[in-house]
Amino acid sequence: MEFEIRPATEAGRRYVALCEEHAVDFATRADQHDRDGTFPFENLDALQKSGVLSAPLPVEYGGLGIESMQDLVAGLNRLARGDGSTAIAAQMHLAAAATVARGWHTAKATGDAEAIEAADGILQIFGGIVVCLSITEAGTSAFFPLTEATPVEGGWRLNGRKIFGTLSPRADIFSVLCRFAGAGDDWRSSFAFVPRDAEGLSINDDWDALGMRASGSGSLDFRDVFVPEALFNPQPGTWGEMDVGTLQAQIFALPLSAAMLGIAERARELVLGAVTTRRKAPSNRLLSERTGIQYQIAELEIDLSAARAMLERTAANFDRYMLGRYGDDVDLAALRDLMRDYQCTKWVANRKAIDVVDRALTLSGGAGYFNANPLSRLYRDVRAGPFMQTYSPNEAREYIGRSALGLDPAPDL
Amino acid sequence: MEFEIRPATEAGRRYVALCEEHAVDFATRADQHDRDGTFPFENLDALQKSGVLSAPLPVEYGGLGIESMQDLVAGLNRLARGDGSTAIAAQMHLAAAATVARGWHTAKATGDAEAIEAADGILQIFGGIVVCLSITEAGTSAFFPLTEATPVEGGWRLNGRKIFGTLSPRADIFSVLCRFAGAGDDWRSSFAFVPRDAEGLSINDDWDALGMRASGSGSLDFRDVFVPEALFNPQPGTWGEMDVGTLQAQIFALPLSAAMLGIAERARELVLGAVTTRRKAPSNRLLSERTGIQYQIAELEIDLSAARAMLERTAANFDRYMLGRYGDDVDLAALRDLMRDYQCTKWVANRKAIDVVDRALTLSGGAGYFNANPLSRLYRDVRAGPFMQTYSPNEAREYIGRSALGLDPAPDL
Amino acid sequence: MEFEIRPATEAGRRYVALCEEHAVDFATRADQHDRDGTFPFENLDALQKSGVLSAPLPVEYGGLGIESMQDLVAGLNRLARGDGSTAIAAQMHLAAAATVARGWHTAKATGDAEAIEAADGILQIFGGIVVCLSITEAGTSAFFPLTEATPVEGGWRLNGRKIFGTLSPRADIFSVLCRFAGAGDDWRSSFAFVPRDAEGLSINDDWDALGMRASGSGSLDFRDVFVPEALFNPQPGTWGEMDVGTLQAQIFALPLSAAMLGIAERARELVLGAVTTRRKAPSNRLLSERTGIQYQIAELEIDLSAARAMLERTAANFDRYMLGRYGDDVDLAALRDLMRDYQCTKWVANRKAIDVVDRALTLSGGAGYFNANPLSRLYRDVRAGPFMQTYSPNEAREYIGRSALGLDPAPDL
Amino acid sequence: MEFEIRPATEAGRRYVALCEEHAVDFATRADQHDRDGTFPFENLDALQKSGVLSAPLPVEYGGLGIESMQDLVAGLNRLARGDGSTAIAAQMHLAAAATVARGWHTAKATGDAEAIEAADGILQIFGGIVVCLSITEAGTSAFFPLTEATPVEGGWRLNGRKIFGTLSPRADIFSVLCRFAGAGDDWRSSFAFVPRDAEGLSINDDWDALGMRASGSGSLDFRDVFVPEALFNPQPGTWGEMDVGTLQAQIFALPLSAAMLGIAERARELVLGAVTTRRKAPSNRLLSERTGIQYQIAELEIDLSAARAMLERTAANFDRYMLGRYGDDVDLAALRDLMRDYQCTKWVANRKAIDVVDRALTLSGGAGYFNANPLSRLYRDVRAGPFMQTYSPNEAREYIGRSALGLDPAPDL
Repeated sequence: MEFEIRPATEAGRRYVALCEEHAVDFATRADQHDRDGTFPFENLDALQKSGVLSAPLPVEYGGLGIESMQDLVAGLNRLARGDGSTAIAAQMHLAAAATVARGWHTAKATGDAEAIEAADGILQIFGGIVVCLSITEAGTSAFFPLTEATPVEGGWRLNGRKIFGTLSPRADIFSVLCRFAGAGDDWRSSFAFVPRDAEGLSINDDWDALGMRASGSGSLDFRDVFVPEALFNPQPGTWGEMDVGTLQAQIFALPLSAAMLGIAERARELVLGAVTTRRKAPSNRLLSERTGIQYQIAELEIDLSAARAMLERTAANFDRYMLGRYGDDVDLAALRDLMRDYQCTKWVANRKAIDVVDRALTLSGGAGYFNANPLSRLYRDVRAGPFMQTYSPNEAREYIGRSALGLDPAPDL
Repeated sequence: MEFEIRPATEAGRRYVALCEEHAVDFATRADQHDRDGTFPFENLDALQKSGVLSAPLPVEYGGLGIESMQDLVAGLNRLARGDGSTAIAAQMHLAAAATVARGWHTAKATGDAEAIEAADGILQIFGGIVVCLSITEAGTSAFFPLTEATPVEGGWRLNGRKIFGTLSPRADIFSVLCRFAGAGDDWRSSFAFVPRDAEGLSINDDWDALGMRASGSGSLDFRDVFVPEALFNPQPGTWGEMDVGTLQAQIFALPLSAAMLGIAERARELVLGAVTTRRKAPSNRLLSERTGIQYQIAELEIDLSAARAMLERTAANFDRYMLGRYGDDVDLAALRDLMRDYQCTKWVANRKAIDVVDRALTLSGGAGYFNANPLSRLYRDVRAGPFMQTYSPNEAREYIGRSALGLDPAPDL
Repeated sequence: MEFEIRPATEAGRRYVALCEEHAVDFATRADQHDRDGTFPFENLDALQKSGVLSAPLPVEYGGLGIESMQDLVAGLNRLARGDGSTAIAAQMHLAAAATVARGWHTAKATGDAEAIEAADGILQIFGGIVVCLSITEAGTSAFFPLTEATPVEGGWRLNGRKIFGTLSPRADIFSVLCRFAGAGDDWRSSFAFVPRDAEGLSINDDWDALGMRASGSGSLDFRDVFVPEALFNPQPGTWGEMDVGTLQAQIFALPLSAAMLGIAERARELVLGAVTTRRKAPSNRLLSERTGIQYQIAELEIDLSAARAMLERTAANFDRYMLGRYGDDVDLAALRDLMRDYQCTKWVANRKAIDVVDRALTLSGGAGYFNANPLSRLYRDVRAGPFMQTYSPNEAREYIGRSALGLDPAPDL
Repeated sequence: MEFEIRPATEAGRRYVALCEEHAVDFATRADQHDRDGTFPFENLDALQKSGVLSAPLPVEYGGLGIESMQDLVAGLNRLARGDGSTAIAAQMHLAAAATVARGWHTAKATGDAEAIEAADGILQIFGGIVVCLSITEAGTSAFFPLTEATPVEGGWRLNGRKIFGTLSPRADIFSVLCRFAGAGDDWRSSFAFVPRDAEGLSINDDWDALGMRASGSGSLDFRDVFVPEALFNPQPGTWGEMDVGTLQAQIFALPLSAAMLGIAERARELVLGAVTTRRKAPSNRLLSERTGIQYQIAELEIDLSAARAMLERTAANFDRYMLGRYGDDVDLAALRDLMRDYQCTKWVANRKAIDVVDRALTLSGGAGYFNANPLSRLYRDVRAGPFMQTYSPNEAREYIGRSALGLDPAPDL
């Protein structure tokens, strides 16, 4: 009996099975892409072809109709066992697809004909393209974008620079978080949709990092990029405000922590294989027969079980509240609480995933320190987790603490 | 939105509601019983009267029909918020009741008429009495009892000494783990039922410990106690063997870790109350407005969320496998895996519960160090968790590691 | 070869030897005083008689001339092995004595005749009395006393309440930190010397705490206590300012963390004794022969070695800077750095001491949970460390971080 | 006031100053060597030229006469701030030089004319060459070498394979731990000196690892390498026995942990630079002004201070016992105790160094995850520490625990 994260629905089980198949395939190329720093275009093609990328879309639009966060968490967890880079790249699109699908459900639930038509338009094309969320910038906190849109005839001019543009080598369209001057003194936020071939957009081949080297996370420069009004999607509330929509979108990042767990689970698999087959002089006992090895394995198992339990429970908490609840029925206070739960889980899952790979490295003796051993890649890949938004570790503690204390949870950024 | 452990069934919700009511009441007397080291007879009476003690019994026998481990876990968690000592005392009986009820379900499922009749006989009386499991001894591991039964005319003579006899001041009958000489060289194990007033049984009023002072956990001496054959219940397998029955019984101890969590949750409640109302010079800001306090609260929340997620998930894992599965359908390998999962959860939940109370103490400034402050009791009570069987922390790591490595998981005791 | 904290000087070696003798004696009564909550008057008498209490005084005034912090740290460490309560009570006087002695050295070094005379006056009586530093209050940070002195004819009237008045049952004179209105709007701080029998002083017998139960740490009430001008000792700088004098005095609290280490060392001794003599069924091997026990002992040793190294090094750092350097030669920036070093050491030593006792408790099996076992007392006593000023754990992190970042290190209280 | 590791002697101060100068230089090339995986020949040349490599040799032989472990520890600590790879490569030679110098002192102290002459012979050439200790093999514990010497006419034939041959690209002579058949059934150990150009020796350019990429730690193959009798140096005792000589040699590896600390100190320097100069929207405060950053810096400082204190103290403990004590005056029991102290320090220093770099990475926001940022290299380099012999983390706990328990400390390998 394994205690891995389970999908919640029948569609989810099919989705997870697909992801597991891909993972076996991706694992064969992960080390090479890591070494070369190349983007795994073939993996993304395969995910598109198999239906994984469109899984969150409604069945009516060719998707698997995966609405459950628990299903999404389980799927990305499995993908990451094969290749963490591919998993987080896929997540950039999956989160966008899930958001769009939820928009459609919301429109239908509230009976807003205009919104239904708009969602239908987007969904019609979503199955055939790859969309990439583009959020992070240097020198600012996520959600306080400095990339700026200024109004021009028929639309907007976009200027700024994004980093960590995961999936950018393959994206057809970028969904770019930016700011624009609202009425009065306030900045407001918007998502601008920018196609790959837009004039003024540079997709830079400059991703060279410690890990996640095949994730295509280079920078993007926007220089006077024209965005027609129809592709400019202002958000309610002011710049940086964590309203219902923003919080909901944020929590869609939960599968990223499940990807870190997947990396850790792969490390566990590798090290179990090693210690149950390797012997060492002078006794030539199997390593697994040494009590110290058993203790280390136990500590690794304990860490894994904590990460799994928290991820599955937070996803289920999200589903319990969100599924079948749309529009004004979704309460800001409830989302803030779900965000607190998510932040607790992100903290533990990301850290425990790092700890598990670290323990696996120790258990490898020294073998895992060689680049020829996949553990060395996993050690670098898994360290990416805590950098992923929202929030940074410091901000997370502030959010959680303030929320538990009944204060406005927004960190003092 | 709180993220406390949820019951799984409708009956469970009623059970938990009862436990929450009791907890409010018990909390009013917990400090006094702790200080005096007195047993809370009135609490046990209330639990018996309200139906909590008989909750695991089938509805046909006056119980609530609580079969779900998740329900039991949620219930004991709530009781412990009021008084940890009472909670663990109640658990001694509840575990026995759950075991008996499961025996009845098993007999019915397998259609064994004799077993059904026997179970019926026990259940007829179980609603009206308090039973106490009596396992632990000094100088041996649990499940290798040195208390010994020797055959005599019409039954057995029991000799030995038990410690940590939680609930003993109130128990009507003790279910005493002992050994007897089997065929050949092997020792075998048995449970002997000994009524409170049996000749040769001394129930010693000698419980004086760091914490759980109201749990009545004194020692028991058995000097030539006669046990009629009908009350001697030999276990399959040899002395100390972890077979299906023993493992199943062991896992019924899971609510104990949920009790430790309940203690931690009470500490959290107290400290949240303190820091949101107390001010401190020179600034006279509320303590909760200090960033450092918010960070500490965050770390406490994270610990709590890990313990909750693991307890709820392990309980649900147990239910998923065990509910509706009886007799030979229950597989040793599956139970060993569930035991591994339980041990991971026990490790984390007990430790995190301790950590949470420790953080609460730190957050109290120094107020919690005074005996007048309930935190000082919670700090002592919660430390009992890791001593509770099965297993000790060292043995647990050995079990988990060996199990994950595919070895016979039994620690080398 | 043991790696315990070493004294730095020949006089220190004699001092430590005395402390070790006392510890053996104190250990025989520690549990009884703890249980009864009684103050160990006989221990304080013995410390006075043997010369330990006057050790920091110059040889000319009957002391041992112990100026070295490393010597003081080593001594209190040894005392606490016998009885933590007595050790921290003694420290209240020792810190005062060391401060007075340093004042005398400073006066001599600067050749200030008036100061020499004043110091001489104090030293003349210091050998025969017991002085108690009285700092902490509820509702404020240490060093922002709310106890207030108002000017009256010939002196001051003192009003306020102190808590954690360790050593108060035996003190002849209290050195009370208070505030008074300075010129302009500023509060200033002062030490007021109040004899035990002063009118308006209530020494309350209300110390009833989790641990350190024999330390006599009750509250003190000051109601219109008259303090003649000669016994009122205004501090330079404003209320709460951490100037050279205040910092110097603060760092004199370093031996308190060495006392926590002493408690941990005692726990280690007890548990080593237990596991090297106890056997357990079914194997009946000595506990020490079990690998898991060896691992736990190793982790305990590692923790001890970290605490020892940091305490000895911080004490030596202090001595390297402070010995032979007086008055204006002592630099505020240097003292702030020493304070940072001290705070790092306090953090680790107090926490590791707690961890060591916790591990010892785990290693005891369950034996240590009984009140009859001294480990249960050590577990309660050692938890006092983090509450001791300066600073609280939260404030300490703020101080250390700000100091390392080159900011004004004072926490934002 | 900084609290870095101090040298113990005047010669040590000059040595450390030299190392600090080199570090500034090495730092300019460290990232490039890391990226290219090239060996820093120019660094080794510079170390040889400046006298660092010969520092442990007696002044009479052109060295600085550095006998103090504390000096060696402080020196390597500084070197590693510039480039960890160069530091550990240098240590391979420095440890050999220190061992040879100690042999000379021992010979002189015991007045053994033959030994003096032999040591003189070695020392005459030691100043001009680079020697590389070659110990580790796959599939066995250090000190149970499987590389085997078989007797032939005039000497021995050596066959086997060594890994982690740090410094091998530059070594003139390898000091190879091997085994040979002793009298009876026992294996014995020996050091065979093999010059770089020996027939049958392959120095493989196959070092490609996670970190320490410029350390030249490739494998060495020995195929029927002839070793003349004069260059074959049998060790007393049996294969794998930890006798006085072996223990002494082992403890000479202590500076390696100080190198890990040096890497951590470099990470701290980089991150302090970053947070005191970078600002972040929306507030545009300096990062250092955020309380959360201050807390993280504090935790980093605390970790550093623990590692420094333990390393300096263990080195001083070693010096206190070993300096001026030679031959039979060196006691096995004392060395075992020093080894326990060393293992405690190695455990903490290596782990804390990793933690510090990890915290620095977190503090960098995400900047440190880019390969262009030296933090990414430091994160990979510092992870090498726990793999360095003696012992592995599991074995270390076994050694420490057994030693503290008064058992034969040798782990059950």
